[in-house]
Amino acid sequence: MSKSFWHKYQQRYNELGSLVCVGLDSRLDLLPECVQNADNPIWEFNKAIIEATADYATAFKPNLAFYLADGIRGLEALYKTVEYIPKQIPVILDCKVGDIGSTMQGYVEAFFRNIKVDAITVNPLMGKDVITPLLQEEGSFAFALALTSNPSAEDFFHKADMRHRVVTWIAQYDVTRLGAVVGATQVAHLQEMRNLMPERLFLIPGVGAQGGDLEAVMKYAIKSPEDPRILINSSRSIIFASLAKDFAAVARMRAKNLFGACKA
Amino acid sequence: MSKSFWHKYQQRYNELGSLVCVGLDSRLDLLPECVQNADNPIWEFNKAIIEATADYATAFKPNLAFYLADGIRGLEALYKTVEYIPKQIPVILDCKVGDIGSTMQGYVEAFFRNIKVDAITVNPLMGKDVITPLLQEEGSFAFALALTSNPSAEDFFHKADMRHRVVTWIAQYDVTRLGAVVGATQVAHLQEMRNLMPERLFLIPGVGAQGGDLEAVMKYAIKSPEDPRILINSSRSIIFASLAKDFAAVARMRAKNLFGACKA
Repeated sequence: MSKSFWHKYQQRYNELGSLVCVGLDSRLDLLPECVQNADNPIWEFNKAIIEATADYATAFKPNLAFYLADGIRGLEALYKTVEYIPKQIPVILDCKVGDIGSTMQGYVEAFFRNIKVDAITVNPLMGKDVITPLLQEEGSFAFALALTSNPSAEDFFHKADMRHRVVTWIAQYDVTRLGAVVGATQVAHLQEMRNLMPERLFLIPGVGAQGGDLEAVMKYAIKSPEDPRILINSSRSIIFASLAKDFAAVARMRAKNLFGACKA
Repeated sequence: MSKSFWHKYQQRYNELGSLVCVGLDSRLDLLPECVQNADNPIWEFNKAIIEATADYATAFKPNLAFYLADGIRGLEALYKTVEYIPKQIPVILDCKVGDIGSTMQGYVEAFFRNIKVDAITVNPLMGKDVITPLLQEEGSFAFALALTSNPSAEDFFHKADMRHRVVTWIAQYDVTRLGAVVGATQVAHLQEMRNLMPERLFLIPGVGAQGGDLEAVMKYAIKSPEDPRILINSSRSIIFASLAKDFAAVARMRAKNLFGACKA
């Protein structure tokens, strides 16, 4: 990691004007048939997807689970993928880790120093011990789960007191070191989150096939049209839009469409 | 995984009468000098620790962070470690993952099918989507964070409403499929946790050098002297008790001492 995430992200956004984060949820069993016989199918697939979509991406976001699901070869694919992504595009590893300080130090070593990603996602439940080792790593950045987009977010995140507690906790940290994961499924929540965290960078998952959500995100989740402070992640609806030989070309088209649709 | 975790755990506990879980937090930079030049130092170290402590262990618990911190070689060490642990001793992978359903399915593949551990730890914050894919995996088991032992547990877990919400959430699930991680740092909390979850298996971290904590655990955290339903994890105070060539012999002595000290 040569520059800080924050610097890289701002530079990339200013140059490209894109809010698109391409999620590399490259699940082995969902990959197109034409890459399945490669020595390392996930790597082969990612290489093509990165080449096809980089022009529209302000960030890439691989999810650790899908790499570990392919064992040693999967972890090798993750290393190669991060190395291959053009250096001006920040990489966010989605891993949602959260542990005591000495363990988080292990993850800092694993993700920022070995795999060399620019940012990770973290689960805040264990409190500030999760963040302290990250802050000690120069230039690093994390997105803390503030409100997730999955159906069972209602179990904890949809309780108002819980949401406020998490937001208050996030507010302790500098906006150039900690962002927030904010799911796009409920308009009222998007508004609330931006009101409570006016300056923070949001990583927004859950914007998929449905155009309606995207409209709400562009209306309620941005800081301002000049400085939106959001990254809209799309994974499956870009990378698995076609499972035929044209998968990369179709992914490029989908990334371009999302890029166009979320021009502020 | 040939048998369910619950079956393996009960059989092992009944045979051995031990409450000891040996935490394999095998951080590369803390390993004894005598293993540092091995092709795979973590694996070399774990092999000796497993041989030395298995007689007193009802479970082993490697923490994912310290393996990923050594890159591809570290993940190889984790595979070898899990394979080497005697089949009658259940292995709990400490990874504290928690994500949407499709991602959790990736972790099921990674941990239960590839690495072949018997149980994992999970973070419940994203709700039931975290658990559903695990329940679909026959014989699997998870320990959900209910109250952690780290200083900043006070940020979220020490709020009474939060604790009750997590406990109520855990109560939805069968005790043979879901246990609870309960930190040993506050006596009042240990009592409360056992009162609220009378039948559940507790994985108890934070019992280290301090004998006082252990006494409180044996008094307040057990279900009953006949059926304690706890696993007391000790990592660094067993595996790093000596950094000289006698490290394995000293680890054995420490495991034996803990075994003796927590006879119900």
